[in-house]
Amino acid sequence: MTKVPMARPSSRRAFLKGGLAGAAAVAASAGAARAGGETVITEVQDWARYPGDGVDARPYGRPSPFEAHVVRKNVPWLTSDTISSVNFTPLHELDGIITPNGLCFERHHAGIAELDPAAYRLMVHGLVEKPLVFTLADLKRFPRENRIYFLECAANSGMEWRGAQLNGCQFTHGMVHCVMYTGVRLRHILEEAGVRPDGKWLLAEGADASAMTRSIPMEKALDDCMVAFAMNGEALRPEQGYPARLVVPGWEGNMWVKWLRRLEVGDQPWHHREETSKYTDLLASGKARRFTWVMDVKSVITSPSPQAPIRHGKGRMVLTGLAWSGNGRIERVDVSLDGGRNWKTARIDGPSLPMALHRFYYEFDWDGSDLYLQSRAIDEKGLVQPTKDQLRAARGPNSIYHNNGIQTWHVDKEGVVENVEIS
Amino acid sequence: MTKVPMARPSSRRAFLKGGLAGAAAVAASAGAARAGGETVITEVQDWARYPGDGVDARPYGRPSPFEAHVVRKNVPWLTSDTISSVNFTPLHELDGIITPNGLCFERHHAGIAELDPAAYRLMVHGLVEKPLVFTLADLKRFPRENRIYFLECAANSGMEWRGAQLNGCQFTHGMVHCVMYTGVRLRHILEEAGVRPDGKWLLAEGADASAMTRSIPMEKALDDCMVAFAMNGEALRPEQGYPARLVVPGWEGNMWVKWLRRLEVGDQPWHHREETSKYTDLLASGKARRFTWVMDVKSVITSPSPQAPIRHGKGRMVLTGLAWSGNGRIERVDVSLDGGRNWKTARIDGPSLPMALHRFYYEFDWDGSDLYLQSRAIDEKGLVQPTKDQLRAARGPNSIYHNNGIQTWHVDKEGVVENVEIS
Repeated sequence: MTKVPMARPSSRRAFLKGGLAGAAAVAASAGAARAGGETVITEVQDWARYPGDGVDARPYGRPSPFEAHVVRKNVPWLTSDTISSVNFTPLHELDGIITPNGLCFERHHAGIAELDPAAYRLMVHGLVEKPLVFTLADLKRFPRENRIYFLECAANSGMEWRGAQLNGCQFTHGMVHCVMYTGVRLRHILEEAGVRPDGKWLLAEGADASAMTRSIPMEKALDDCMVAFAMNGEALRPEQGYPARLVVPGWEGNMWVKWLRRLEVGDQPWHHREETSKYTDLLASGKARRFTWVMDVKSVITSPSPQAPIRHGKGRMVLTGLAWSGNGRIERVDVSLDGGRNWKTARIDGPSLPMALHRFYYEFDWDGSDLYLQSRAIDEKGLVQPTKDQLRAARGPNSIYHNNGIQTWHVDKEGVVENVEIS
Repeated sequence: MTKVPMARPSSRRAFLKGGLAGAAAVAASAGAARAGGETVITEVQDWARYPGDGVDARPYGRPSPFEAHVVRKNVPWLTSDTISSVNFTPLHELDGIITPNGLCFERHHAGIAELDPAAYRLMVHGLVEKPLVFTLADLKRFPRENRIYFLECAANSGMEWRGAQLNGCQFTHGMVHCVMYTGVRLRHILEEAGVRPDGKWLLAEGADASAMTRSIPMEKALDDCMVAFAMNGEALRPEQGYPARLVVPGWEGNMWVKWLRRLEVGDQPWHHREETSKYTDLLASGKARRFTWVMDVKSVITSPSPQAPIRHGKGRMVLTGLAWSGNGRIERVDVSLDGGRNWKTARIDGPSLPMALHRFYYEFDWDGSDLYLQSRAIDEKGLVQPTKDQLRAARGPNSIYHNNGIQTWHVDKEGVVENVEIS
């Protein structure tokens, strides 16, 4: 084995500290040349010769510089200002069912609020026996639970109501993430204040400058809702509502109020902006669907996809994607290679948890021909993911939210993938 | 509601960009003064008045500046150089069962290797029908799986063989983490090469400058071992072996070779350094235990603990901790408040997965008296976590590894917690 020098050559560490460009330069200088698309290794690589950073170098770790392309992305023309907008989880780059905290999509209306946890307060008032104000430390004295749940914005895939618009599952489906939440069952907090018999609805309000609000029926509030303070083991991220947010399992994302500051118990819904002007869908009849709380059964193939073309040519390959439902577990996912004429059952792998993302795989031999890839999920209640045409027929042309239609990707002979719609 | 100005006052954003000190200054200036240990809010906070960062500001997110104290920590005197050393997961700050990627403890012998995934190669050779070299893209064409597994260094809690040494569960138990791995069953890769009938052992070797190796019996290699390339959904972190590492579920951490570059099939174990000079325990008889592969049933209370004292005084409180076993699931965790005289069954919450961390809670009313906290885990095979004295009686005084003994924390009347041993 090559003897490892104890001294760390400063030039190499300087290379690496220079980031991706530096690392690529290291690879090139260390005898790795590209031939026919694949790197050819001609000598021992630097990482096998020289020591790297020690255990005091990264108190909080970060991804490899070679993963710098794996980021949240926003679409600048979607809104008039980035402080009231959304960005998208890079689904095409991820695997499994857990979304790492730094890549969870963001949706906020006054930018990221940076709360001081010592000054954080949660007020519970209205039709309760005793109004209360909790500190974060108070909340942590109630019994806790840990649950893996997906969170999907009701506007996810909303652009696609009008046809194949955005070229990538990050943009068509990326307003979804899935983490393990730790927090307190909302029921404990409401029982502490004592909900009066006429208390039938709950208003949740956030502490950021947009002070978002939603009305939640008391049955749901007392069921599985949580006040969460951790995601994937650590404190919530600021953009996900640090230090505490509401979790409303399986229901519309904007009900999961971030930077939760107030819970008011009432006897009717409040009909605030975010459940009247927004988050309703106008039907052809002139009436609007409202209080469409449950996120419907849905799936999408994340690879191959427009941002994840097939690069290895013909032969054995892995198709993968995600499926989820606000109704509980996913029972089955079918995959089609020919635009929905023939379906095969995909393999769901890993833990199957209610109202969490499910990961499916379909392994097959690609013969290099054109493909029209689709996935179709069926949840534990037997509900089947519809086509976009079926949705349009049922809802009319003016919907913005709740587009859970089947997604089609076209793969050409070079492995290039495109967002398409087919009848 | 206070009207939100559209302009972002530059002084506030400058405050926040100044980090924690700046944020504390914002809190102070925005009418929050400390009175008797608790922050008293006297006016509307800045985060409720002014917008924050937009959706283009954080392509890859990071924790709140108020969480800057939640970091991996190393113990400088443990080794002679930080490039061959360990740091520790801040268990006392975490909850649930998932360890966020940036806080997973590190253990390496030549610092963090920074591999270029394009130059990454995995060679399979030895007693196989056809030796093969795989690129990372090749590996991604095999069927994948997703599993949540703990990884524990066999030396975890090793200092504590000699008594209560380190004052904090981060240091006594922090060489453990738990993430969801995505990767390929090792069996697929070995079957591709074709293991010959006399191939009974596997040598795994890493690509970093220390080129660590371990011998693995073929039955385990063909069972549930994986070559993993993702952790919690994204690519492995450099310090965890990017772009690919071995996963050996439930077995000693150092077998999970990072920066995996070579798999050699042989008919005997290799008896390399990391399974002879290291990772063996000298018994009183003069013989040594070796090939002690399975990580034994173990638990620890993470809060209260020396780094997580009780700050809220008497009354309702939450005790929490972790339990795990290389034998499968945890069946039960008992908790004692009086040093092991009386035991109560704790509540295990969240998914119970084989060879993954389990999170337990015990809620009780603290009367302010001295406590001697202990937890004791029982796994699905009926194996019970022993006391440290039982371990010492069985193994003698010279053990370094496999200390799964019951941990005791003393809590005094002020809520201060200390690492102690009691008989």
